[in-house]
Amino acid sequence: MVTTADQNLVRKFNTGVVLNTIRHHAPLSRAEVAKHTGLNRSTVSQIINALLERKFVQETILQSDRVGRPGLLLELDPAGGFAIGIEIGVDFISLVVTDFLANVLWRQRATSSSQNSIDEILERAYQMTEDGLKKGYSLNLTPLGIGLGVPGLVDLKHGELMFAPNLGWTNIPVTKLWSQRFKLPVFVDNEAKAAALGEHYFGNAKGEGNFIFLTGGVGLGAGIMIDGKLFRGSHGYASEVGHIIMDPDGEQCGCGKKGCWETMVSPRAVIKRFRDTLRQGVPSTVLNAADNDPDNIVFETIVHAALQGDNAAQIAMQEVGERLGFGIANLVNIFNPRMVILGGELNYASELLLPVVRKVVNENAMNLECQDLKIEASAHGRDACVMGAIALVLDDIMHEPNFI
Amino acid sequence: MVTTADQNLVRKFNTGVVLNTIRHHAPLSRAEVAKHTGLNRSTVSQIINALLERKFVQETILQSDRVGRPGLLLELDPAGGFAIGIEIGVDFISLVVTDFLANVLWRQRATSSSQNSIDEILERAYQMTEDGLKKGYSLNLTPLGIGLGVPGLVDLKHGELMFAPNLGWTNIPVTKLWSQRFKLPVFVDNEAKAAALGEHYFGNAKGEGNFIFLTGGVGLGAGIMIDGKLFRGSHGYASEVGHIIMDPDGEQCGCGKKGCWETMVSPRAVIKRFRDTLRQGVPSTVLNAADNDPDNIVFETIVHAALQGDNAAQIAMQEVGERLGFGIANLVNIFNPRMVILGGELNYASELLLPVVRKVVNENAMNLECQDLKIEASAHGRDACVMGAIALVLDDIMHEPNFI
Repeated sequence: MVTTADQNLVRKFNTGVVLNTIRHHAPLSRAEVAKHTGLNRSTVSQIINALLERKFVQETILQSDRVGRPGLLLELDPAGGFAIGIEIGVDFISLVVTDFLANVLWRQRATSSSQNSIDEILERAYQMTEDGLKKGYSLNLTPLGIGLGVPGLVDLKHGELMFAPNLGWTNIPVTKLWSQRFKLPVFVDNEAKAAALGEHYFGNAKGEGNFIFLTGGVGLGAGIMIDGKLFRGSHGYASEVGHIIMDPDGEQCGCGKKGCWETMVSPRAVIKRFRDTLRQGVPSTVLNAADNDPDNIVFETIVHAALQGDNAAQIAMQEVGERLGFGIANLVNIFNPRMVILGGELNYASELLLPVVRKVVNENAMNLECQDLKIEASAHGRDACVMGAIALVLDDIMHEPNFI
Repeated sequence: MVTTADQNLVRKFNTGVVLNTIRHHAPLSRAEVAKHTGLNRSTVSQIINALLERKFVQETILQSDRVGRPGLLLELDPAGGFAIGIEIGVDFISLVVTDFLANVLWRQRATSSSQNSIDEILERAYQMTEDGLKKGYSLNLTPLGIGLGVPGLVDLKHGELMFAPNLGWTNIPVTKLWSQRFKLPVFVDNEAKAAALGEHYFGNAKGEGNFIFLTGGVGLGAGIMIDGKLFRGSHGYASEVGHIIMDPDGEQCGCGKKGCWETMVSPRAVIKRFRDTLRQGVPSTVLNAADNDPDNIVFETIVHAALQGDNAAQIAMQEVGERLGFGIANLVNIFNPRMVILGGELNYASELLLPVVRKVVNENAMNLECQDLKIEASAHGRDACVMGAIALVLDDIMHEPNFI
């Protein structure tokens, strides 16, 4: 089937191509844009003039070491506007405001709990969004849109959160709620898919088309990039790797099944393993720090203790690293990716986990699958998802520039 | 980046579009081809005249119930040529010759064993190919090409079989060997990936863009179709699902690791489970049929006995069905496919396995992932791979018609 394209569509498409070319290759000249895109000089000039006017692009000082006729070079303009990225986590809400180059201008974080009703959590997120918008306007910037990352299965077509196992939410029409309230473009996606997009735009997987982003928090999520596109499956629910059943007789999972991978490798699982280790009589400094109450032990303390050489903490981290490595080896056999990136809370522990994970993957995935494979920590730490939510907003502008 | 297309490339692309339109919608008129493709009437006529001349397309009798001006309708012409599809299995070689519509004109099958050297097996396959070519020429047809399905990791770029765990082969330059010998277009792919393409072209997944094809023989292979394209991963080694580690302390696998999924669900695993069941004292009619020697028991006998109500055979099939179901549930959570198709030797047992697999998948995959999910047997039984090899040849013509 051949699509007939009208002039406006062609212009929009070409504007996206020019914007992306400048994003990837800045600073560069108009002639270089023409060369990269294959568009003729006058089309490039028209588009760039529109982009300069809209402040998506700015002219920068000529670099002295470049050859050819002198002229101003082009780059993206941070003043192109501001974007709001929000993560509604299982036990927190996080928000950042960034400029058009995804530089963070402002941030806010609030804790929440399973005690809070859906309405309470949404209301808190609305208030934070209001605050974020005020901040953006106070900097005299144009709002570009709001991106939201949520911990569950998202129906992208309707912008609806269908099922969030660890929140216990079903059928929340996120896009509709936010659009009605804020009258701005709203984009919603699964937290891990959003974070993968963020990592692809401005993180450790920049320019990498085939990678798996794994994020461990209360659950374990994944965003899988295939040939530069987020992999979504037939209904958009693909990549629920946290619910791969590793042990049918295992621990109860929030999804209702038993022995899911996420019950073995999340920070919660680390705490559980650590308590088991204590029960087995391994001494630890962590217990003192937690007033001798195992219920007071948090993930960060265990990571810290393991880094300091605490035996029990190291055992727990080692075991979880192995479980993580086994699952990743399976994903490597299935996806043959070029990179695997660990994000979310697991990011804190990357110094401890990465060597174990790399070893277990190399021992358990097929050799050819591991060719050139890199296993790294996320560039954004616990900001991976909010930065991904920003990427949702910017990605839309880069591919569907609506201002023209 | 914009690609500049010369006239020949445009013509080739459009010819492919016309061919595929006729394949999908035949019989249809020239006007309908123009409507479907968006190409103008004279371009369509030029292309169709060339296709008629090449015998890729034929004119068929006008259907009386159609409206509009009378005229001959178009369909693919079986006399367009003949294709050869070969599967080099772990313990057999299978070959079919088909016409341009993939109707089987001739077939041959030979057994092989791990006792045979690589050269012996290749020589046997060459001889069979010679026989197939003779058959095709004797029918006065033009050879279109040779497709090969092989049980291992294939480097598509160089047409090389990199590693076949169950054959113990490494680095066999398949395309080079066959091209030099037969001076015809040669296409090679992993057996399961080829079979998935066959299922997509002329099987139970016809027109379905998101499905997983699983084939069980000595090993367990998969071909995964995503948005109408075979999923290959960054180096082409994706979808090695047979080597997902299900139990790190499990049975030794041909790949060198332990507890891979294929050690639990292949026909070999069924035989093993069945022998275990016998050892546990469950009586069975199968043992009589095998002269009371457990070593004589073959997969087909167990399947047959289970269908006849044999208790031990049913226990073995049930257990393997559950193991299969668990793994498929995980793949469903990962890929959110619309179909899962069971092929290869497992196909014989589909009547027994499908109900168990469907039940276990529904119980263990997330509900939303199972929405509209179909789990079916392959349309081609043990011919799935050879028909896939035919699809490799025809797919190339449909997308890169080189005769123009």
